[in-house]
Amino acid sequence: MPATPRPPLIHPDKSDLSLVAVLHALADPTRLTIVRTLRADPERPCGTFPVTVAPSTLSHHFRVLREAGVIRQRDEGNRRWTTLRLPDLDARFPGLIDTVLASPPDNT
Amino acid sequence: MPATPRPPLIHPDKSDLSLVAVLHALADPTRLTIVRTLRADPERPCGTFPVTVAPSTLSHHFRVLREAGVIRQRDEGNRRWTTLRLPDLDARFPGLIDTVLASPPDNT
Repeated sequence: MPATPRPPLIHPDKSDLSLVAVLHALADPTRLTIVRTLRADPERPCGTFPVTVAPSTLSHHFRVLREAGVIRQRDEGNRRWTTLRLPDLDARFPGLIDTVLASPPDNT
Repeated sequence: MPATPRPPLIHPDKSDLSLVAVLHALADPTRLTIVRTLRADPERPCGTFPVTVAPSTLSHHFRVLREAGVIRQRDEGNRRWTTLRLPDLDARFPGLIDTVLASPPDNT
């Protein structure tokens, strides 16, 4: 019997990106680590991010980032690949992602 | 009988400012309006901000901004004055406030 298909991934259009939603998505240490990792490495499979949270928590963080339009995800076989939507973000909020990533993270 | 003194206002030190807390504080339309207003006008009394929320809600927003270190407040007589902590914010997170304020707010 084939596996149950995963629900489709929903991504907002570039023109619908919300500053408040993007700031909210960035306002979390785990999500900042995900964004920082993707800024350095354009596409990564889930499970390869340097974070130490439970899988369900990580799924939640990916969903917040995806629904805010910060990341794009696609399923290929058994793997889910994640990219940073930097061109879309930079078009709408110029320099925001790099300014945030240039800021010292907490506890430094 | 004298009025009950207000509780002291607590402000984090510049070195304790947290990127996550600042991003969280900025991730709200009313709080962004407060910050945008203070960026243009250095010190304002409460009650003069162009926001349409209940006083208790506004107090909450000021508290979130104050505890994140985004604003400083002082009481003088019956008025509470608010300033943006731009020098502290720029020292710790260079360019962050102006990059956020240069981004189009939601619904534009």
